[in-house]
Amino acid sequence: MAFLNENYLKLKAGYLFPEIGRRVREFQTQHPQADIIRMGIGDVTRPLTPAVIKAFHDAIDEMASVQTFKGYGPEQGYDFLRQAIVDNEYISRGADIEIDEVFVSDGSKCDTGNILDILGRDNIVAITDPVYPVYVDTNVMDGRTGEVQDNGYYKGIVYLPCTEANHFVPEIPKTKVDLIYLCFPNNPTGMTIGKDELKRWVDYALANDAIILYDAAYEAYISDKAIPHTIFEIEGARNCAIEFRSFSKTAGFTGTRCAYTIVPKTLMAKDGKGQKYPLNQLWLRRQTTKFNGVSYPVQKAAAAIYTGQGKKETAETIKYYMENAAIMRKSLSDEGYKVFGGVNAPYVWVKTKNNMSSWDFFDLLLGKANVVGTPGSGFGPSGEGYFRFSAFADRQKVLEAMERIKKLG
Amino acid sequence: MAFLNENYLKLKAGYLFPEIGRRVREFQTQHPQADIIRMGIGDVTRPLTPAVIKAFHDAIDEMASVQTFKGYGPEQGYDFLRQAIVDNEYISRGADIEIDEVFVSDGSKCDTGNILDILGRDNIVAITDPVYPVYVDTNVMDGRTGEVQDNGYYKGIVYLPCTEANHFVPEIPKTKVDLIYLCFPNNPTGMTIGKDELKRWVDYALANDAIILYDAAYEAYISDKAIPHTIFEIEGARNCAIEFRSFSKTAGFTGTRCAYTIVPKTLMAKDGKGQKYPLNQLWLRRQTTKFNGVSYPVQKAAAAIYTGQGKKETAETIKYYMENAAIMRKSLSDEGYKVFGGVNAPYVWVKTKNNMSSWDFFDLLLGKANVVGTPGSGFGPSGEGYFRFSAFADRQKVLEAMERIKKLG
Repeated sequence: MAFLNENYLKLKAGYLFPEIGRRVREFQTQHPQADIIRMGIGDVTRPLTPAVIKAFHDAIDEMASVQTFKGYGPEQGYDFLRQAIVDNEYISRGADIEIDEVFVSDGSKCDTGNILDILGRDNIVAITDPVYPVYVDTNVMDGRTGEVQDNGYYKGIVYLPCTEANHFVPEIPKTKVDLIYLCFPNNPTGMTIGKDELKRWVDYALANDAIILYDAAYEAYISDKAIPHTIFEIEGARNCAIEFRSFSKTAGFTGTRCAYTIVPKTLMAKDGKGQKYPLNQLWLRRQTTKFNGVSYPVQKAAAAIYTGQGKKETAETIKYYMENAAIMRKSLSDEGYKVFGGVNAPYVWVKTKNNMSSWDFFDLLLGKANVVGTPGSGFGPSGEGYFRFSAFADRQKVLEAMERIKKLG
Repeated sequence: MAFLNENYLKLKAGYLFPEIGRRVREFQTQHPQADIIRMGIGDVTRPLTPAVIKAFHDAIDEMASVQTFKGYGPEQGYDFLRQAIVDNEYISRGADIEIDEVFVSDGSKCDTGNILDILGRDNIVAITDPVYPVYVDTNVMDGRTGEVQDNGYYKGIVYLPCTEANHFVPEIPKTKVDLIYLCFPNNPTGMTIGKDELKRWVDYALANDAIILYDAAYEAYISDKAIPHTIFEIEGARNCAIEFRSFSKTAGFTGTRCAYTIVPKTLMAKDGKGQKYPLNQLWLRRQTTKFNGVSYPVQKAAAAIYTGQGKKETAETIKYYMENAAIMRKSLSDEGYKVFGGVNAPYVWVKTKNNMSSWDFFDLLLGKANVVGTPGSGFGPSGEGYFRFSAFADRQKVLEAMERIKKLG
């Protein structure tokens, strides 16, 4: 009989969001009249903006005519989109990124998982805690960990706790690691990293020949000018970092699917003999062999974000969500909750009262206020006692949810 | 320094299509006036049909309104599309496939590569020769092979030659293998497999606890009623097969991106201790963790293929390409070439004259007739001396190309 990949058997059952879904469905079945407000999964709710919609329609009309029809495109994305990304996301911030360092994809979730294809199994991986579960799970699947332990940690992973004590910015590891996942603005804590602190990570990576896998999916929510939008604003990052970016949260593309990853040509990794190879070439080989590019109309829609009108509209959508975050921050603070994040990120990270566990708070909120959020412990042991609220909601629902939480006392 | 995945270093340089592109560009530079006709890459040329275009536009309008906007969808695809696939592709052919066995994706290339994620490295892999290069390369990347040998074969892979002698249907391997790639109608040979012959493969797989990875991307081109469209028409296949299907060639989606994979719930694989697990669950875990679903408007566009109007339009497009194939078959036969395929598949597989090598024939055709095709040897050693013509071309260009080849004598 064919063998399966046994690493999958190490995965903890019950991924966070399915478990939330299960509890919500069960509650809804028992209380069919309950008007549940969902602020759990970090999914956008505002529609695609007019500039994006127009470009999307126009591209589909191109697909309808033999003269303008598009078949297979470049696996790494069309140049019109890659160049717009270079100009608007990097050159404009003084980050020296070239067009053939941009790889357009159908999602950052895919890219953060797939990047492991080109990296050896012997790398020691450091992951922040709490964290987006995909980083951990994809490493488990790929055989870079042992079994899960009683404390929820997998053997073999170096965990970097992010707590109130360190302002939710992890400390530099004391032992040598090879791959480091950093996500700023952070999911789930909504906290950010300053240039000086990020520089310390880049310096560590350069000194230890490590690679930083930098997830900047929420950079569009940064308003504070001192906070870096890309790791490539930091000197030396071209030699030690891969950056993941997405249109999902920037422009409401969670259901439309478009993202990109930056792999600098100057970034190297070694084989068993110590010979160095550029990872840009390996990723190109991976993508041309295992991927066929993003839908042409979707790429045209994404590029529209970088037009004058597109930028204006996108900024308005982000402002809407960040006003939600401000409302949540104020209301929850007024209720006596300790509140983090939500200033340069669409997530508000709340400490439960009286050391209540994250899942108990989830059940309380669902049962008494009919509000769904995300238990912090679902993101890792250091998230225990915290709770994530997403600002990606309708304004009226945010106001209503805050009213209901107020009544909880 | 971080380690790379050393398996990538085993990959032969110069993937087939980039090499073709290089030679064509070089020729075009030297002969800027040459009117080159491209029948190389198997990429469609007819536009999306009106029913598809309308559904695509309608779905985009849904994305423009807060009431109908879609964020994250189910990673495995929306039920409206999965159910349409079950009803139209399987139930209608007596194949007993259920909705939760259908996984919608952005491409069969991705799926045939990614499926290896859930399968152990110790599986012995059998691959037909000639073959779509992705099957081989993804196994190399994933560490299931040794180095490439002088004959072009990778150590560790069991190759199954498909030649004139066996009518391009491989013989059952004499040694035990665990994973078997079969593609019918075949790329590149354009040849098909009958139900009885496919049954022999299913029986072999069942007897040897092997899994058949069945690529049916070209099934829509079958006109002969005796030829199976899906391996699940064969009794027992639910216990030994995974099937890959795509809208790329069926409905012109190469630039739009939508495909699907069938993983039956009855298909098992074992761990090192011999314990069996259903692969459907593993693939679901893989897709929910490393993939975020296909763009909603793209899924709506794909579903339109299954409407009455959509079916009629798709059939017309396929008829157009198959008339091209018939023209090519007749013209090349008249010129004294031995011609295979092109009856139930959009590829015509031609034996070169006087044992000319595939690349010599490529250069001759490009140089003297300004026609681009695909050298058979690029698909594997058993393709040497053959040449692939794609029927996915404009009618006038097909006629012109055949005229030019006629003049070659």
